[in-house]
Amino acid sequence: MNKSAICIVLVNTSHPGNIGAVARAMKNMGLVELRLVAPARFPAEEANWRAVAASDVLESALVVDTLAEAIGDCQLVIGTSARGRRIPWPVLDPRHCAEQALRAAGREQRVAFVFGREDRGLTNEELQQCNLHLHIPTHEDYTSLNLAMAVQIVAYELRMQAVSAELPDDACAHWDEPLSTAAAMEHYYKHLEQTLIEIGFLDPAAPRQLMPRLRRLYGRLRLDEMEMNILRGILTETQKRIRT
Amino acid sequence: MNKSAICIVLVNTSHPGNIGAVARAMKNMGLVELRLVAPARFPAEEANWRAVAASDVLESALVVDTLAEAIGDCQLVIGTSARGRRIPWPVLDPRHCAEQALRAAGREQRVAFVFGREDRGLTNEELQQCNLHLHIPTHEDYTSLNLAMAVQIVAYELRMQAVSAELPDDACAHWDEPLSTAAAMEHYYKHLEQTLIEIGFLDPAAPRQLMPRLRRLYGRLRLDEMEMNILRGILTETQKRIRT
Repeated sequence: MNKSAICIVLVNTSHPGNIGAVARAMKNMGLVELRLVAPARFPAEEANWRAVAASDVLESALVVDTLAEAIGDCQLVIGTSARGRRIPWPVLDPRHCAEQALRAAGREQRVAFVFGREDRGLTNEELQQCNLHLHIPTHEDYTSLNLAMAVQIVAYELRMQAVSAELPDDACAHWDEPLSTAAAMEHYYKHLEQTLIEIGFLDPAAPRQLMPRLRRLYGRLRLDEMEMNILRGILTETQKRIRT
Repeated sequence: MNKSAICIVLVNTSHPGNIGAVARAMKNMGLVELRLVAPARFPAEEANWRAVAASDVLESALVVDTLAEAIGDCQLVIGTSARGRRIPWPVLDPRHCAEQALRAAGREQRVAFVFGREDRGLTNEELQQCNLHLHIPTHEDYTSLNLAMAVQIVAYELRMQAVSAELPDDACAHWDEPLSTAAAMEHYYKHLEQTLIEIGFLDPAAPRQLMPRLRRLYGRLRLDEMEMNILRGILTETQKRIRT
């Protein structure tokens, strides 16, 4: 993703601390372009403090007077909105908005995500300057999200889209040892069974479902070679002790 | 989703303000069960202040001394982790972890998401008490997420999973007027063409690609019936003016 293809626009932010938290949330997810429409106070100490290591995002932030100036160079403008506006507008959740944004950015378009005031969001007039509205599906018990949290969710979705090709959906995709082969597993089960007989835990005359249960247990694990060596070592040691 | 099937566990949180921000992030996404392992200061004024309307989550929070106590009743324990631990553990992004969590909760299992200290996360020993590790794919320029932001992302993913069946992937899924039929569109194009000829903008002898371009434009819009009436009204008025 071209870092500056997507910008975050904050309209009339009251608390500079929120601007700082937004800068950090952006940089954590690889966004760098921040535009501020008539913030109440900026620059401000609290903003730098909350930005922690993202003060560069604050320093390069563009400060303008109107939303129109902030989004003037953008081909896709997405405004965050609570539901239930008088005139319905095209509205999507953060995931689908992120999809649209990255698709547009991939076509060399500039995209703005616009966030409103802490207490009452964007006005209808501002929302009507947007191509698309974004709605975060909060729970009905408490729908008012902190501003920086809303930006964090959107920035996270953009990042997930940008890196989705790299993200494994298999929890064990990154492993340090090669996995055991089926043949090695069979050797292990044989060794295990023999040992269980030797210690008197398994009666070959009445084996019941013991070995199938142990196969199901170890089979689910997908043991790696080092783990296999450890388990085999335990069996070998156990046998030595018993036989002496 | 059964609200209390999934709990958020914070280990050794230094700043009570972060605990409050976590409570708000949780309630915004429909989570209510918070467990605190040896917080530096709690209860605390800053926690209530940052929780805003989620002070009920703080009031019902369980405070315990050890991680083992916090997760004792859980069947699935997911610990947040930066990458690159010495021993690789099963690791997934927030989306896939949320999937697993809701699947487990659907089978009446209790699930814990465990978050570590602000400055250094969870220890290796704590991570080894988890079934699965969660990694948020931050950008390499700035990987250190604020604690409450990390909780917000996870809570958001849980909420997205929980409501995914209800969420429209069509931006215009909720609309107030029925859409125009193809026949109504054809009447409109005919009316438009006639009007453009009357105002002298379209030369029937050399129409070029004007009408196809206008068809492409209005066709993409998927006009509703009220919008259609407005456009037809404009054409009718225009014709009246010209003909007088």
